[in-house]
Amino acid sequence: MNAELKISQRGLLMPESPIRKLAPLAYAAEDEGVKIYRLNIGQPDLPTPQKALDILKDVDRTTLEYSPSQGYRSLRQALVGYYERYQIKLNANEIIITSGGSEAVLFAFMSCLNPGDEIIVPEPAYANYMSFAISAGAVIRTVTTTIEEGFCLPKVEKFKELINERTKAILICNPNNPTGYLYTQKEMNQIRDLVKKYNLYLFSDEVYREFIYTGSPYISAMHLEGIEQNVVLIDSVSKRYSECGIRIGALITKNEAIRKTVMKFCQARLSPPLLGQLVAEASIEGTEAYSRDVYEEYLERRKCLIDGVNRIPGCFTPIPMGAFYTVAKLPVEDAEEFCSWCLSDFRYKNDTTGKLETIMMAPAAGFYSTPELGKNQVRLAYVLNKEDLKHALIILKNALEAYNKTY
Amino acid sequence: MNAELKISQRGLLMPESPIRKLAPLAYAAEDEGVKIYRLNIGQPDLPTPQKALDILKDVDRTTLEYSPSQGYRSLRQALVGYYERYQIKLNANEIIITSGGSEAVLFAFMSCLNPGDEIIVPEPAYANYMSFAISAGAVIRTVTTTIEEGFCLPKVEKFKELINERTKAILICNPNNPTGYLYTQKEMNQIRDLVKKYNLYLFSDEVYREFIYTGSPYISAMHLEGIEQNVVLIDSVSKRYSECGIRIGALITKNEAIRKTVMKFCQARLSPPLLGQLVAEASIEGTEAYSRDVYEEYLERRKCLIDGVNRIPGCFTPIPMGAFYTVAKLPVEDAEEFCSWCLSDFRYKNDTTGKLETIMMAPAAGFYSTPELGKNQVRLAYVLNKEDLKHALIILKNALEAYNKTY
Repeated sequence: MNAELKISQRGLLMPESPIRKLAPLAYAAEDEGVKIYRLNIGQPDLPTPQKALDILKDVDRTTLEYSPSQGYRSLRQALVGYYERYQIKLNANEIIITSGGSEAVLFAFMSCLNPGDEIIVPEPAYANYMSFAISAGAVIRTVTTTIEEGFCLPKVEKFKELINERTKAILICNPNNPTGYLYTQKEMNQIRDLVKKYNLYLFSDEVYREFIYTGSPYISAMHLEGIEQNVVLIDSVSKRYSECGIRIGALITKNEAIRKTVMKFCQARLSPPLLGQLVAEASIEGTEAYSRDVYEEYLERRKCLIDGVNRIPGCFTPIPMGAFYTVAKLPVEDAEEFCSWCLSDFRYKNDTTGKLETIMMAPAAGFYSTPELGKNQVRLAYVLNKEDLKHALIILKNALEAYNKTY
Repeated sequence: MNAELKISQRGLLMPESPIRKLAPLAYAAEDEGVKIYRLNIGQPDLPTPQKALDILKDVDRTTLEYSPSQGYRSLRQALVGYYERYQIKLNANEIIITSGGSEAVLFAFMSCLNPGDEIIVPEPAYANYMSFAISAGAVIRTVTTTIEEGFCLPKVEKFKELINERTKAILICNPNNPTGYLYTQKEMNQIRDLVKKYNLYLFSDEVYREFIYTGSPYISAMHLEGIEQNVVLIDSVSKRYSECGIRIGALITKNEAIRKTVMKFCQARLSPPLLGQLVAEASIEGTEAYSRDVYEEYLERRKCLIDGVNRIPGCFTPIPMGAFYTVAKLPVEDAEEFCSWCLSDFRYKNDTTGKLETIMMAPAAGFYSTPELGKNQVRLAYVLNKEDLKHALIILKNALEAYNKTY
């Protein structure tokens, strides 16, 4: 019958993460003793709230048993209070706890989309959306935002051009990974009108809401009137409490039919992580001072990074309004090649320590679906302290000079 | 365009867990103050190893960061040592840590199967396999095993009848949930020959290997010669260390192409739970005495439950060789109705405490794909202590008498 064992089509389609591709080069450089300044990933270096860490010492259970498939009620109740701070009114039943925001995206796609259904996503976009779409057999269509326009949403006509009978959803990430862009009230209204007119789902990934730096208002998809049944909010405690490892996210919707379906996927995987839920719950209340400190820290880092990048000849980045990323244009033709070269060939000698150093960045092409876009761009995450950021910028400047002399 | 918001076809297809359906009745009974003896779920009441609980007090990290997508090397290395005890020779690269055995099943299906591909599964079977198959668009075809024959595998012809050009895999659970059946060397060889002849994948869920009571040998799919590239082992620490809540499982295969594909799904969801990995690693070594005690406990419970059930007039269960479940035939026409009735109508008055009590069981029909099969059967999990088990059996006997008098 089967001539040979074959892996699945979707397995072949699954992209390799644009960030992971460079990992082997980074390991090789580290093996040589080279110090790498990592601007490539969204792993904050900041501490988890002490209060949340302390809870682990107080776990007095004798059996680490399954938690409910929708997550503990006490955690969901704590989240109700958290969202109230952002004028998002929910009850605990409208919140389903997931294994990270990742599982929330997967279950949203699995529950709402059939194979062949299309999702419109502004690009550049978080690369793993594509992976979850492939898992669900759905197709991502992109509207392109440009660095020159600061990654603002394109005119509504650009969306309409993509809409056809297979279009089932719009997906946004706000504030945005990788661009740091924050959607304006006008843009959110534009999305709302499209969602309403074509009766689409609106998947809104808002895991960076804590990090908005410009005084502009945060408009949640949950604030939009008249599309309450269309909105699925994707969330995660990972970034806001520096606890990416605990794998606690949430899928939130006022639409009961979606929740009922999502719950079937939740029941199949039995439960979200128990210990992570304890940590997440402890993180939510009484951590206002922590959140303020974290915010101040990112605010300063952002200024440091953006000013620094824009001072390097040939480099340009718009000022990101939120999250802890920015996309920058570099004076190179192929940023992926340049990023590889930084890891494999370029070594900066630290004047003080005498150590060899380099930087790691995420080539931005991996965040675009349209071929050739973003080829001379990189995503930079400001997840290092200011001193390290400043130093990383010196390395970047030197690397660009050396690279452009050589090539 | 879209007239109305629709949930996905696969969402509609997803079954409700046979165990969960009764949950609302159980909550209602508990609200009345009725004590419920739960034989319905695979949530062991036994304690997690103290050594594993203690590790939580020693977590001295300041940031609960992402772990590697394939899981920590130290955990994978510890598992290499664990499998050596069972004559399964692996290296750490052949082990991928997943969020529970559940995610291992999902990623195996996603990586190996295309929509429409068929998997042959002996039934009755763990109900969530169906959910993961639906998630991947794959189709489960069943060969039926019967309570009368003690759930042994049917003749090889029964498998061959199902094999066609869409057949891509056989899935077994050994020792079996829900039947407790342990496949013999002869049966495993029969499966091996089919896998080889038709070049199929063999997904083997062996999360209950710790619990084998008859002195019969445990034959892992990993022990079968000549099909090393076809086997995907599904595992989990949940049952063996009573730590279902930490969500740590593993997908293990010698087939590099599968691993490479599975890793793409792993990278998309970023990482398995960090804290669970710490607990799992601490559970693996230096817990021999714990495992012995747990084994002895289940051995005695098994005897208590099986003897007890077979003494109730009209009841019959074969003697399960492994796991901590058994499927029993009851003297009723519709076990689902009977199970519901036990929760909604039947109350047993405890002579000593004066309290009202009842039992909760899982109707077995939900473990069969073939309609009408298992209608008069239930799955009983021996996850209560012996005293409670004995008492639950008294309640069952009384409930059956009352039910059969009434209906």
